[in-house]
Amino acid sequence: MRVDIVTCQPDLLVSPFAFSIVKRAQEKGLAEIHVHDLRRFAINKHGQIDDYVFGGGAGMVLRVEPIAACLDALLAERAYDAVIYMTPDGETLRQPLVNRWSLAQNLLILCGHYKGIDERIRRAYITHEISVGDYVLSGGELGAAILTDAIVRLLPGVLGNEESALSDSFQDNLLAPPVYTRPAEWRGEKVPDILLSGNTPQIEVWRHEQALERTRQRRPDLLE
Amino acid sequence: MRVDIVTCQPDLLVSPFAFSIVKRAQEKGLAEIHVHDLRRFAINKHGQIDDYVFGGGAGMVLRVEPIAACLDALLAERAYDAVIYMTPDGETLRQPLVNRWSLAQNLLILCGHYKGIDERIRRAYITHEISVGDYVLSGGELGAAILTDAIVRLLPGVLGNEESALSDSFQDNLLAPPVYTRPAEWRGEKVPDILLSGNTPQIEVWRHEQALERTRQRRPDLLE
Repeated sequence: MRVDIVTCQPDLLVSPFAFSIVKRAQEKGLAEIHVHDLRRFAINKHGQIDDYVFGGGAGMVLRVEPIAACLDALLAERAYDAVIYMTPDGETLRQPLVNRWSLAQNLLILCGHYKGIDERIRRAYITHEISVGDYVLSGGELGAAILTDAIVRLLPGVLGNEESALSDSFQDNLLAPPVYTRPAEWRGEKVPDILLSGNTPQIEVWRHEQALERTRQRRPDLLE
Repeated sequence: MRVDIVTCQPDLLVSPFAFSIVKRAQEKGLAEIHVHDLRRFAINKHGQIDDYVFGGGAGMVLRVEPIAACLDALLAERAYDAVIYMTPDGETLRQPLVNRWSLAQNLLILCGHYKGIDERIRRAYITHEISVGDYVLSGGELGAAILTDAIVRLLPGVLGNEESALSDSFQDNLLAPPVYTRPAEWRGEKVPDILLSGNTPQIEVWRHEQALERTRQRRPDLLE
């Protein structure tokens, strides 16, 4: 899979992709992540890429020309399964969409910054507008990092044990059950006996009950 | 404000805090962000901090001792308004909680990794379990970066113009209206006339209508 990310803050994305799962995926040749600096497409030699908002008010807006030039260059090179704009007024990201995009060949992600991007870019280029949640960030970069991490960890061969992702929260509309590791007793608190029993079928029943109970208590909406 | 983040992947958090808004907030002395490496509290000289999950199955679990030692050291130094664990089965982060935490003095954020942390740590230390959305990431680090960014940009003096954050999506339960900047015409598409009219009261009415319309179409749940 190839992921192209277009941003005016490329430095911000260095470490999220240089460590952990996403690093491993790139080293194994399972994912290629390319970060493109919008300033390379600035409208003048001062590196300008934004401008004041029409109609007045606080905040700057990313101009159409640098974004269009960068996207045109990328779109001329390959077909993308989706051209995604990270924005708080987009569709809320959920695991099923992440699963779907883990099957894509090429994804293009545009990060907003400041007050956002000129609306005409959204109409002209964007196939999916995506929000990582109902809160506002200083830019789309962390959203792009989240989307990339969530997708890349699902690529076959990235996680050490593929079973691991299937038992995550949300994969079966249930939250994950509690987990415990050694020591079996800590500050007087013992691990539930069942987990030390070695009775795998019973342990699976217990885990399912715990997952269901936790989902009922915390996220009954997932069960509807 | 002071934010302490406890993680087994401190490198992953370098660039999100070294650029943009969070950098500016630190330079202005408005926010202090400290990232703590769990491996400094490893249980042996091999740097071990995790172990196999009790009951069998894929994935590793962060052990109690390193986390307890790190949190004990921090809690001995100051009082925290919240001890937060980033986890997909936590309460879903939304803007009102971000607003509330922007008034805090000290926040402590614990990142999970692998299959998560031993359940006993959650019961012993955590006051708030928070999820940034209904998807699974390879660790809590990007969630912690998002929470920190969302909070820090609200601190008075961080954004260039304080009005800017108040007109964001979600601050009034509405999505933000479309924004436009120069040029007024691009590839035959013109900016709406009203925005060039100079009639500020009418522009505000138009923006409110657009925000309402966009919210009705995309997120009717916000209007309920």
